[in-house]
Amino acid sequence: MRPSRRAPDQLRPVSLERGVVKYAEGSCMVKFGDTHVLVTATLEERLPPWLKGQGRGWVTAEYGMLPRATLERTRREAAAGKQGGRTVEIQRLIGRSLRAAVDLEALGERQITVDCDVIQADGGTRTASITGAWVALADCIAWMKNRNMIKANNVLRDNVAAISCGIYQGTPVLDLDYAEDSEADTDANFVMTGDGRIIEVQGTAEKTPFSQDEFLALMELARKGVARLVDLQKLAVA
Amino acid sequence: MRPSRRAPDQLRPVSLERGVVKYAEGSCMVKFGDTHVLVTATLEERLPPWLKGQGRGWVTAEYGMLPRATLERTRREAAAGKQGGRTVEIQRLIGRSLRAAVDLEALGERQITVDCDVIQADGGTRTASITGAWVALADCIAWMKNRNMIKANNVLRDNVAAISCGIYQGTPVLDLDYAEDSEADTDANFVMTGDGRIIEVQGTAEKTPFSQDEFLALMELARKGVARLVDLQKLAVA
Amino acid sequence: MRPSRRAPDQLRPVSLERGVVKYAEGSCMVKFGDTHVLVTATLEERLPPWLKGQGRGWVTAEYGMLPRATLERTRREAAAGKQGGRTVEIQRLIGRSLRAAVDLEALGERQITVDCDVIQADGGTRTASITGAWVALADCIAWMKNRNMIKANNVLRDNVAAISCGIYQGTPVLDLDYAEDSEADTDANFVMTGDGRIIEVQGTAEKTPFSQDEFLALMELARKGVARLVDLQKLAVA
Amino acid sequence: MRPSRRAPDQLRPVSLERGVVKYAEGSCMVKFGDTHVLVTATLEERLPPWLKGQGRGWVTAEYGMLPRATLERTRREAAAGKQGGRTVEIQRLIGRSLRAAVDLEALGERQITVDCDVIQADGGTRTASITGAWVALADCIAWMKNRNMIKANNVLRDNVAAISCGIYQGTPVLDLDYAEDSEADTDANFVMTGDGRIIEVQGTAEKTPFSQDEFLALMELARKGVARLVDLQKLAVA
Amino acid sequence: MRPSRRAPDQLRPVSLERGVVKYAEGSCMVKFGDTHVLVTATLEERLPPWLKGQGRGWVTAEYGMLPRATLERTRREAAAGKQGGRTVEIQRLIGRSLRAAVDLEALGERQITVDCDVIQADGGTRTASITGAWVALADCIAWMKNRNMIKANNVLRDNVAAISCGIYQGTPVLDLDYAEDSEADTDANFVMTGDGRIIEVQGTAEKTPFSQDEFLALMELARKGVARLVDLQKLAVA
Amino acid sequence: MRPSRRAPDQLRPVSLERGVVKYAEGSCMVKFGDTHVLVTATLEERLPPWLKGQGRGWVTAEYGMLPRATLERTRREAAAGKQGGRTVEIQRLIGRSLRAAVDLEALGERQITVDCDVIQADGGTRTASITGAWVALADCIAWMKNRNMIKANNVLRDNVAAISCGIYQGTPVLDLDYAEDSEADTDANFVMTGDGRIIEVQGTAEKTPFSQDEFLALMELARKGVARLVDLQKLAVA
Repeated sequence: MRPSRRAPDQLRPVSLERGVVKYAEGSCMVKFGDTHVLVTATLEERLPPWLKGQGRGWVTAEYGMLPRATLERTRREAAAGKQGGRTVEIQRLIGRSLRAAVDLEALGERQITVDCDVIQADGGTRTASITGAWVALADCIAWMKNRNMIKANNVLRDNVAAISCGIYQGTPVLDLDYAEDSEADTDANFVMTGDGRIIEVQGTAEKTPFSQDEFLALMELARKGVARLVDLQKLAVA
Repeated sequence: MRPSRRAPDQLRPVSLERGVVKYAEGSCMVKFGDTHVLVTATLEERLPPWLKGQGRGWVTAEYGMLPRATLERTRREAAAGKQGGRTVEIQRLIGRSLRAAVDLEALGERQITVDCDVIQADGGTRTASITGAWVALADCIAWMKNRNMIKANNVLRDNVAAISCGIYQGTPVLDLDYAEDSEADTDANFVMTGDGRIIEVQGTAEKTPFSQDEFLALMELARKGVARLVDLQKLAVA
Repeated sequence: MRPSRRAPDQLRPVSLERGVVKYAEGSCMVKFGDTHVLVTATLEERLPPWLKGQGRGWVTAEYGMLPRATLERTRREAAAGKQGGRTVEIQRLIGRSLRAAVDLEALGERQITVDCDVIQADGGTRTASITGAWVALADCIAWMKNRNMIKANNVLRDNVAAISCGIYQGTPVLDLDYAEDSEADTDANFVMTGDGRIIEVQGTAEKTPFSQDEFLALMELARKGVARLVDLQKLAVA
Repeated sequence: MRPSRRAPDQLRPVSLERGVVKYAEGSCMVKFGDTHVLVTATLEERLPPWLKGQGRGWVTAEYGMLPRATLERTRREAAAGKQGGRTVEIQRLIGRSLRAAVDLEALGERQITVDCDVIQADGGTRTASITGAWVALADCIAWMKNRNMIKANNVLRDNVAAISCGIYQGTPVLDLDYAEDSEADTDANFVMTGDGRIIEVQGTAEKTPFSQDEFLALMELARKGVARLVDLQKLAVA
Repeated sequence: MRPSRRAPDQLRPVSLERGVVKYAEGSCMVKFGDTHVLVTATLEERLPPWLKGQGRGWVTAEYGMLPRATLERTRREAAAGKQGGRTVEIQRLIGRSLRAAVDLEALGERQITVDCDVIQADGGTRTASITGAWVALADCIAWMKNRNMIKANNVLRDNVAAISCGIYQGTPVLDLDYAEDSEADTDANFVMTGDGRIIEVQGTAEKTPFSQDEFLALMELARKGVARLVDLQKLAVA
Repeated sequence: MRPSRRAPDQLRPVSLERGVVKYAEGSCMVKFGDTHVLVTATLEERLPPWLKGQGRGWVTAEYGMLPRATLERTRREAAAGKQGGRTVEIQRLIGRSLRAAVDLEALGERQITVDCDVIQADGGTRTASITGAWVALADCIAWMKNRNMIKANNVLRDNVAAISCGIYQGTPVLDLDYAEDSEADTDANFVMTGDGRIIEVQGTAEKTPFSQDEFLALMELARKGVARLVDLQKLAVA
C-alpha cells in the first residue's frame, strides 16, 4: 500500500495552469500533487557568446527552490553564493530535455530561458518542472509565431514530459512523492516524447543495485505515465 | 491623472492570503495590485552565533525575486553568485521593521526567518513584503502559542505595515506602481505601527530635492495608507 | 547630559582638509570629532556599460573601513571576499546623494568615482562621508573646468551635506557619536542641499517606534546642522 | 566502421595500474585507450557534519581535469573560482556509484575520499574514473584491514565498473572515444556490479530521441563491457 | 642621475609617526617619501584553529591599498570579491618577516594582526609596510607588557626593517621610487634585522638576468639602508 | 647526515620526460626524486586584454597540486572556490622566471600558458616546476618553428632552471626534500639561466635570520645545482 493510497501506476493529481505571470512570453504553474513549480519562458534576442553567428538558437533552463518549499527551510542559494550540485544537475537536465524537441535552426539566433522555481516540494520536482516547462515553452513559441518571428510550423517537434518511478517496498510504482522517494530502493526519472521515444533516462540504486527486469518494469510504468501527461499537456495548450 | 486612474490617496487592490505553503509555520501571499509576494515564516531552534546565550530570540528576513517577476528577465542571483545591493538593502529593511514590533526576550532563544519572494513585480515590492511578512509572522507566533512554546501574550506588540508615496507630476500620491515609480521625482517608503508611530522612513529625491512641506504631505498620505493596511491585516488574521 | 557634554544641537568639531592625496582629481580628509574619513574623487573617461551613448555622465561611490578603524578589529572585506550589507547600503546612499546635486548631462560621458575610506570610526561615518565627498567632488569638477573639459557653470548645482540626529535618553540631539548611537532609541540621517531641501531621509526606530512630532524635532535639528556644515564646505573650497 | 576500427562491442585497451602515488591509501592509474585518469583514495578519521554520530562512514568523490587534458586548453576551475556543472554532475555520480557497493556501517565513522583527476581525455572519463576508483577503493579498504581498522570481510560487497555506449552512425557501439562521442546520436553510461546488476543508468539523446529497443541494445553491450572490466579489476587486485 | 636627484645610496625622507589611530594597541603612519602606509597592530585573544593548544601565539599581516593610492584608480578588492595575487604575496611576506623576530612562545596563545593600508603609493609599499609594522608591533607588545600580559623581556628579539634596491640605468641604487621602479632592470627587496642578518631576500630580474656581483652590490646598499631605518625605528619608539 | 644520505651538494635523481600528454604543444614530466610535476605548454592565439596591440606575446603559468599529492590530503582548490596564497605566489614566480628568458616581441601576439600540476610532492615543487616548464616551453617553441609561426632563432634566449638550498642542521645543503625542508632553518630558491646569471632569488629565514656568508654559501651550491640541471635539460631536448 502506497502512503498516498494510490495504485502503483497512478499519477498524483496533475494540473497545468498557463499564463500565471503577466510579463513572461510563456508561463505555467504545474502541480503534481503537493509539488508546485512555477515555470516561465523568456525570449531574448541574444545568445551565449559561444553560439553566436551559427544561425541557430538556444534553449536553456534554470532551477531554484524557494527556501521554505521544503519541510525544513533550505538555505537560499543566492545567500550561500552558489548553486548547489543538485540544482546544477537538475537545470542541465531540463535544458537538455527541452532542446531535444526544439528545431534550434528554425528558432533563429535567439535564446529562450526557462525558469523553474519550486514553490512547494513533495518529490518529483524535476519531472514536474520538465512537464510544465514544455507548456511554457510551447506558449513562448506560439507567442513568437503570432508576431511572425518564426515561420516553420515544427519549431517544437513533439511533446516532452517526464515522470519518476521507483521500487517502493518491492513494488514498482509511478510518480514517487516525498514519503516514497525517501524510502525507495531505486529511483528512476524518464523524459520522453509524445511519440513514446526516450530523451533521457536516469536510474539510480539508492541502496541495492537493481536487475534489468526491474528496470524494464519501471520503464513500462513511465511510458504509461508520460502518455497521460502528454494528454494533459495537449488539453492545456489546446 | 494617475496612469491607473486611482485617486491620489487610493491604494491598489490589496489581498492577504494566509496558509499558502503547507510546510511553513506561517505564510502569506500578499498582493498590492500586480505586485505579488509570497512570504513564509520559518521557526528554527537556533540562533546566529553572536546572539547565543543572551536569553533572547531573533527575527531576520531574506528577499528575492523570481527572474521573470520583472518586465525583462533579471539575472538569477544564485547563478550570479551574490545578492545585489538592492536585495541586501531591502532584506535588511524588512528584518529591522519586523523586529521593532517583536518582544525578542519573550520569543526565547529561537530565530524566525521571513522569506519574501517576489512572484510578480509592479512597484512597491518592499512595502508589500513588509505588510505580508507581518501576517506570516503573526501566524508563526500563533503556531508557537498553540504549542505552548511561548507564554507572553504580547510577543508581537503591534501591527507593522508599509507603503510607498511619491510626488508624481507634481502631486503627492499613495502606493506607487511601476509606471509611477519610474517617473516620480520623489519616492518615500514608510513603515508604521498599528498605533500610527513610525518604525522606518526612507525618502529619496530621484531627481530634484524636495521641501519639508512636500515630505510632510507624503507622510500624511502614508499614515492613511498604513491605517487601511492594518485594517486589512486585522481582517486577515481574525 | 550628552557623554561628550555637547549641547543637544551642537556638532562635533568638524574639519574638511583638501588635497590630502597627491594623485586624485579631488580629495578631502573629513573629521567629525573622532570620526575620520579619507575621500577621493577619481575622474575616468569611461562609463558603466548600461549608460553608454546616452550623452550623460555618472557619479558613483564606494565605501570601506580600515579593519582597525573600530574599537575591535573588523574583518577586512577584501579578505572575506565580499562587501557586507551595511557597506553596500552606505555606498549606494552616498552615490545617490551626490547625483542629486550634479547635472549629469553637463558632465559629459565620464564617470566620477568617490571613494570614502574610514580611517577611524566614532559614529556618523556615512554623514561625514557625504559631507566630505561633496568637497572632493567639487574639487574634481573644478579640476575639469580648469582643463576646459566642461563648460557649464552649474555642473554642481548646490552643496550637499549630511548629519545624523537621534533621541538620546529622551532628548533629540544632533550628530550622534558612537557612545550615543549605540544607546539611542531612534536614529535618523538627513542629506540636504545648501538651500535647505531634502535629498534623502532615513529614520529608524532602533527599539521603540517614534511619533511624527519626534521625527519633526529631529528634522529641525538636522536643518541647523546641515546649514553649519554647508558654511564649512563653503569656507573649505573658497 | 568506427574511427578506431574497433568492433562494435570492443573496448579500447584498458589498463589498471595500482600504487602509483606513494602517499595514498589506495591509488590507480586507469587507462581506457587515450583516456587516462589518476585516482587516489584517501582515508580520513572524520565525517561531514551531517553524518556524525550515526555509526556509519561515508565514501565521496571529487573529479577534475588538468587544463590541457583536452584538445584545447580548458580553464582551470581553481582559477575560475568554481567547479562547473559537468564536474559537479560527474563527481556526484562517482560517489553514488561507489557507495552502492560499500557497507557504510562496517566502515565505521570514517570517510574515504576518491579523487579522480583526468590527465588526458579522449571520451569516457567518467566511466574510466568509476572503474579505476573501485580499484583504489579496494586497496584503501585492504589497507584498513591490514591494520585491523575494520573487521567485516564484505565492506566492499561487489565490484563496480562503468562503461559508455552509444549509437554511432546507426550502430550501437561500446566504449565511445571522443571522435565517436562528439558524433553520436545517443549516449548512455551504465554503472554495474560484478554480478550484473545496475547501479546507475544515464541515457541521453544528444539529437534524436531513441526507442526502447535501441536502449536495450545499448544495455546489452554495456553488460558485456562491464563484465570484461570486472575481470580486469579482479586481475588487478589479485 | 636619479629622477629624484638622490645619491645612489640615499633613502627618501622617512618618517615613523606612532599612535595615529586611537583604538589600536599599536599604530604607525610610515612615510618613505610619497609612499604613505597606515599600519595598525591588533591584539586578539584567539588563534587560527590550526594553532590552538600549542602554547604559542601568532603574528599575521594583511595588506591593502586604497583605490586612489595610485596614479590611476585601482579596483577595490572588496568590490572585486578577492584579493589579487600581488596583495597575497605582500601580506605573506610582511607576516613572515615579523614572525622571524618574535618569540611566539613568550607571546602566549594570542594573535597580533598587523594591517598595512597604503594611503598613497610611490614605490616601495612593501618595504615601508614592514618597517612601519615593526613600530606598530613594538607598541602593541609594550602595551601588553604594561598590562602584565607578557613577562619575558625579549618577546621582540630585534628590529626588523626592509628596503628595496635596484639597478637603474646601470647603477645600483637604494630605495626605488615609482619612477625608478618602473624602469629598473633588477629589483630586490631585503628584510633584515637590527644586527644586520637577513630575514628575507627577494631579487627579480625584470628584464635581463643579473650577475652575482650585481646582486652583492644591491645587498651592500640594502645593509646601509636598513641600518639607517633601524636607527629611525629606535628613535621613534624611544 | 642528510635523511636521504645524499652529499650536501648532491641533487636528487632528476628526470625530464618529454611528450607525456598527446594534445599539448609541449609537455614534460619532471621528477626531482619523489617530487613529480606534470607540465604542459599551451599555445593560444589570444592575449590578455591589457596586452593587445602591443606587438608582443606573453608567457604565463598556472600551478596546482592534486589533492593527494601530499602526505595528508589537501583540499581541492576548485572545490574551495579559490587558489590559496601559496599557489598564487608560486605560479607568479614560474611565469616571471620563464618570461625573463623569452623574447616576447619575437613570439608575436600569442600567449603560451604553462600548467604545472604536482602529481606527488616531496619538497621543491616550485623548482622542479620551473625546470620542467623550461623543457615544455622549449618544445612548444620548437613546435611553432616547425610550422613557421616564428622566424627568430633566439625566441628562447637561454635555459632557465631552479633549485632550492637550505641550512639543515647547520650545514648548507642542495635540493631540500620534504624531510629537510620542514626542519631547515633557512630556505632559499634560486632561478638561474644557463650562463649562470640570476633571474630570481628568494631566501627566507624560517626561524633564525641568517648571515650574508650563509647566504653566499647557499648561492654557491645553487650555482652548481643549476648547472647540472641545465645539462640535463640540454640532454632532454637534444
